[in-house]
Amino acid sequence: MTHKNRIGNLFSLTSFGESHGPAIGGIIDGMPAGVKIDLERLQQEVNRRRPGQGGVSSTRNEVDEVEILSGIMDGVTLGTPIGFIIRNRDQRSEDYEHLKDVYRPSHADFTYQAKYGIRDHRGGGRASARETATRVVAGALAKQVLEVMGITINAQSITNLAEVPQGDTIGGVVICIIKGVEPGIGEPVFGKLSAQLAEAMMSIPAAKGFEIGLGFDFVNHRGSEVLDKWVVKDGKITTETNHSGGIQGGISNGNDICIKVAFKPVATLMQPVQGIDKDGEAVTIEPRGRHDVCVVPRAVPVVEAMAAIVILDNILISRASKL
Amino acid sequence: MTHKNRIGNLFSLTSFGESHGPAIGGIIDGMPAGVKIDLERLQQEVNRRRPGQGGVSSTRNEVDEVEILSGIMDGVTLGTPIGFIIRNRDQRSEDYEHLKDVYRPSHADFTYQAKYGIRDHRGGGRASARETATRVVAGALAKQVLEVMGITINAQSITNLAEVPQGDTIGGVVICIIKGVEPGIGEPVFGKLSAQLAEAMMSIPAAKGFEIGLGFDFVNHRGSEVLDKWVVKDGKITTETNHSGGIQGGISNGNDICIKVAFKPVATLMQPVQGIDKDGEAVTIEPRGRHDVCVVPRAVPVVEAMAAIVILDNILISRASKL
Amino acid sequence: MTHKNRIGNLFSLTSFGESHGPAIGGIIDGMPAGVKIDLERLQQEVNRRRPGQGGVSSTRNEVDEVEILSGIMDGVTLGTPIGFIIRNRDQRSEDYEHLKDVYRPSHADFTYQAKYGIRDHRGGGRASARETATRVVAGALAKQVLEVMGITINAQSITNLAEVPQGDTIGGVVICIIKGVEPGIGEPVFGKLSAQLAEAMMSIPAAKGFEIGLGFDFVNHRGSEVLDKWVVKDGKITTETNHSGGIQGGISNGNDICIKVAFKPVATLMQPVQGIDKDGEAVTIEPRGRHDVCVVPRAVPVVEAMAAIVILDNILISRASKL
Amino acid sequence: MTHKNRIGNLFSLTSFGESHGPAIGGIIDGMPAGVKIDLERLQQEVNRRRPGQGGVSSTRNEVDEVEILSGIMDGVTLGTPIGFIIRNRDQRSEDYEHLKDVYRPSHADFTYQAKYGIRDHRGGGRASARETATRVVAGALAKQVLEVMGITINAQSITNLAEVPQGDTIGGVVICIIKGVEPGIGEPVFGKLSAQLAEAMMSIPAAKGFEIGLGFDFVNHRGSEVLDKWVVKDGKITTETNHSGGIQGGISNGNDICIKVAFKPVATLMQPVQGIDKDGEAVTIEPRGRHDVCVVPRAVPVVEAMAAIVILDNILISRASKL
Repeated sequence: MTHKNRIGNLFSLTSFGESHGPAIGGIIDGMPAGVKIDLERLQQEVNRRRPGQGGVSSTRNEVDEVEILSGIMDGVTLGTPIGFIIRNRDQRSEDYEHLKDVYRPSHADFTYQAKYGIRDHRGGGRASARETATRVVAGALAKQVLEVMGITINAQSITNLAEVPQGDTIGGVVICIIKGVEPGIGEPVFGKLSAQLAEAMMSIPAAKGFEIGLGFDFVNHRGSEVLDKWVVKDGKITTETNHSGGIQGGISNGNDICIKVAFKPVATLMQPVQGIDKDGEAVTIEPRGRHDVCVVPRAVPVVEAMAAIVILDNILISRASKL
Repeated sequence: MTHKNRIGNLFSLTSFGESHGPAIGGIIDGMPAGVKIDLERLQQEVNRRRPGQGGVSSTRNEVDEVEILSGIMDGVTLGTPIGFIIRNRDQRSEDYEHLKDVYRPSHADFTYQAKYGIRDHRGGGRASARETATRVVAGALAKQVLEVMGITINAQSITNLAEVPQGDTIGGVVICIIKGVEPGIGEPVFGKLSAQLAEAMMSIPAAKGFEIGLGFDFVNHRGSEVLDKWVVKDGKITTETNHSGGIQGGISNGNDICIKVAFKPVATLMQPVQGIDKDGEAVTIEPRGRHDVCVVPRAVPVVEAMAAIVILDNILISRASKL
Repeated sequence: MTHKNRIGNLFSLTSFGESHGPAIGGIIDGMPAGVKIDLERLQQEVNRRRPGQGGVSSTRNEVDEVEILSGIMDGVTLGTPIGFIIRNRDQRSEDYEHLKDVYRPSHADFTYQAKYGIRDHRGGGRASARETATRVVAGALAKQVLEVMGITINAQSITNLAEVPQGDTIGGVVICIIKGVEPGIGEPVFGKLSAQLAEAMMSIPAAKGFEIGLGFDFVNHRGSEVLDKWVVKDGKITTETNHSGGIQGGISNGNDICIKVAFKPVATLMQPVQGIDKDGEAVTIEPRGRHDVCVVPRAVPVVEAMAAIVILDNILISRASKL
Repeated sequence: MTHKNRIGNLFSLTSFGESHGPAIGGIIDGMPAGVKIDLERLQQEVNRRRPGQGGVSSTRNEVDEVEILSGIMDGVTLGTPIGFIIRNRDQRSEDYEHLKDVYRPSHADFTYQAKYGIRDHRGGGRASARETATRVVAGALAKQVLEVMGITINAQSITNLAEVPQGDTIGGVVICIIKGVEPGIGEPVFGKLSAQLAEAMMSIPAAKGFEIGLGFDFVNHRGSEVLDKWVVKDGKITTETNHSGGIQGGISNGNDICIKVAFKPVATLMQPVQGIDKDGEAVTIEPRGRHDVCVVPRAVPVVEAMAAIVILDNILISRASKL
């Protein structure tokens, strides 16, 4: 079962935690032994996801302090699972009492209730974007391994914050470029590297679209315009153009892997919206609590983290490809 | 290991086969027992994927005759794995002899060679779109189960065939709508239904983009414009609009699930193109063999099949959600 | 990857933790929603595993206080993953300093070093039987679900403690009987219920043998003597005898499931033993620390826990067997 | 889902097939690329499993001709999945018509019916030992890879055939020794190599007990008697004795891996036995068809095959243990 609260195969993250419970956390399994870990940089990576980045995010003052509980001794990985927790603080659960029996529009309230017959209504519970902090922890560790292998991952967000009127929200796009992956990484058929990246990215809250290389723009071109011609550079075979985004037939070709993820506008507005209660009665929900105007800048480290998890997992798997 | 030649968890397809070997085939595991199967309709579904659909596809005369080897007795599923094969015929392997040591542009020749150090160069080998026939077999069976549950899946292609000059190729988009999925299907966090659909679709050869609901168009709207308001219809809570595409927080909300997949133009042109050989020398590849001008109409049953596999798998998994 | 630090499919435990790190813990994924949990009974179950049971175990005063971090709200399961930790206390790491570069006989020191090139030498690190506390937590929760279904699991140990001279150790056998499992649970072929139970039991530290029903004693009987004849009891088909131990063809037949697990003697003796250092030099290891004379009584709740995990997982999986 | 019709992780076998359907077969996924395969030796290995070995087995004249359909080109593995089928012949399905609604004692008739609500009653259907032929195919391929690595696997059976009166059956024990596995193979905690071997062996039809090293005999010894002392041989650290059976803490220590599997007597007797029909009425079953007096000699190649699958899978996984 890959598809519950776990992602990855040889290198994997299993996560837990409701937004307003005692803590969130996870277990990173399959981290290779013998890797020097810089825990300060790990914490900095997690801090990038915090609210208050650039004035556009929620004012909730989360202290996402990562506590590592196993798998690292004297700053070096043991090869055993890395357990970690992040305590929830500053929760103001009472802000959510009025939402106990109400389904907000474009939130997961109704769908969780339908699936489980019960839900933690406080701050989105398990559906809260807060769970992404655990992804960043795993991603930060994966990145430090990838760095040793000469692989870098960089994402940036594109949004139109200037145009948002007070009380409304917007979405945006995150572009991510992965450099240094050698040719031959990824699985054919169902486990195409592009497919795994798509799954990983679309599992981020509010993600609604995914592209690799030219993506949907391929539709506007003829085949003869978008073939990636082979060239030899520094003694290595590579492609002159990179319309494919670094992956052909699901397997890396050595060029940069370029992906794009679309995020919808935050569903919690700072204006009254109409919800429905469990009996089907309309309910007006007044704005309360603290919320992001735009989630996209905070999604940047999450996108990088998911990319790092997928790439490291596939590099480890690829060690078994040949005799 | 989800990510080799298998997709799905409780309901899964494991596939095998090179384009020019003796046969392709697969094993469908987890088919519930007691389902009446119409094998003629299954064969018709597979025929939809054949070349020669609408005059735009390759002229290769594949006879994709499905031979079921187990798991079905007297037209009823036994609950045991369904093994099947499709013999390869009309292969003309000699058409490919000149490609033995050549990497074609925007094909998987180079990447397979990098990954495995060896490859079957005939007709793309394992990277051939021919493997998608096995997906259609599994999807056709899944569809027959879903039909009993009142679920239908319909896709259609959008392409601009009229504009393609002779010898060139184009891509296109496939839109797929899944009706009748009850609320509560899908997993939270990493196994979001949208994420699983994204992975399944992006694993189809030539797929380069994925959207659910408004997808990338969400970027052009404010939150207040795209909230899906709740309404009660026929005694059931549902949404008035469906910008989300039927999924919220990764879980179905009962409305139609609407997805879009972008496919790049076929990389094999019927005109000379430049490749490279294993020593880095440029090679001109003359057009030979038989190839699609546009793969998108043939991708329609494949998209439907992948949707059916994901949806059935998740419905079975959801049976364990509650006590 | 089932085979790292995870067991189970739809219901699973992923665990982490070294014996002398800050904490051990785990994530229980797939717990059905809506189950009332008695946390006091859970803690009592964990206490059964503690040292000092019956005077035969180590005197280490472990306070195995389970802290539940998610997945349960107001005493009811949410269907979301249950994260938990147990802090390590009273560690006396300095007791182990002399073992840093020494491989003890019949311990995992050498094999961990060979596998990872590094190890936490303090108290066995990840190889410590201390990790079994996390199994008991998962098992205790599974048991509470099984109880609602009318299923009970009871194990007992058989050892010969009277005969152990001071400073030596012994092993023993644990017998476990599972009552109330309805017919039809378990998978055929590779996932036989007996095979899954064998794996689960043999994964307990020091386990060296497994039997179901007559086990190795089947060798001493002819087929005609050990057929389990069918009878009808209380309107249900069942077997008169139970030589098979409740499982036929890998699937439960409704009768009691009876298994036996053999444990080797504890490898840490309270007398000088000969080890070897990393350079191959013989080293005499003087007894230090606190250790069990016999681990078997403490293994009883662990055996029950593993049985509970396997049975619940398979009951959930079986919900998908039929249309 | 490991636990349906699949075994293994990086190297895996998924199998299908009823005893009296058109064919049985499987897909071997994860075979490393570049391995030279001797297909004649593969066929010979499968022949070892055929009836008529030593006059003690059934007289059914199965022609287990393996047809490889993919994954091997010019005798070398491609790294892609290896699909294969074995046609069923000489089936005499009419021999089983009288068993359609009858549950034989100590067979899987009743349990399959309970699980699926339907079953193929002919020759045991999916529960037939005939499925083990697919295990031998996968095992034979795994063995050829292991051979290159210097690893050999040899099993032998111990039975008391002389004492069986005409019309009865007996069981027996298979001992298997695996030589040449380097230290460091296997996973800690749930995926102990011993646990994986136990699962693999207990998944063989009629297997009822498993031991590693001294197994249940450990109970008769004190710790001081069964410690495996370290010695240096040929410049390598190894153990003087091998009570542990080559595995400590779930990980190989470089010494021979020694396991034992107990098989119950064949449940089909050549004398009248009492069954029960679906309405609970007693039915006398007259002997018919062709059946083994003792299955154990035929289990020898199956035990070797399962060992080979587990060992190769774990060697591939171990490549990801360290940076």
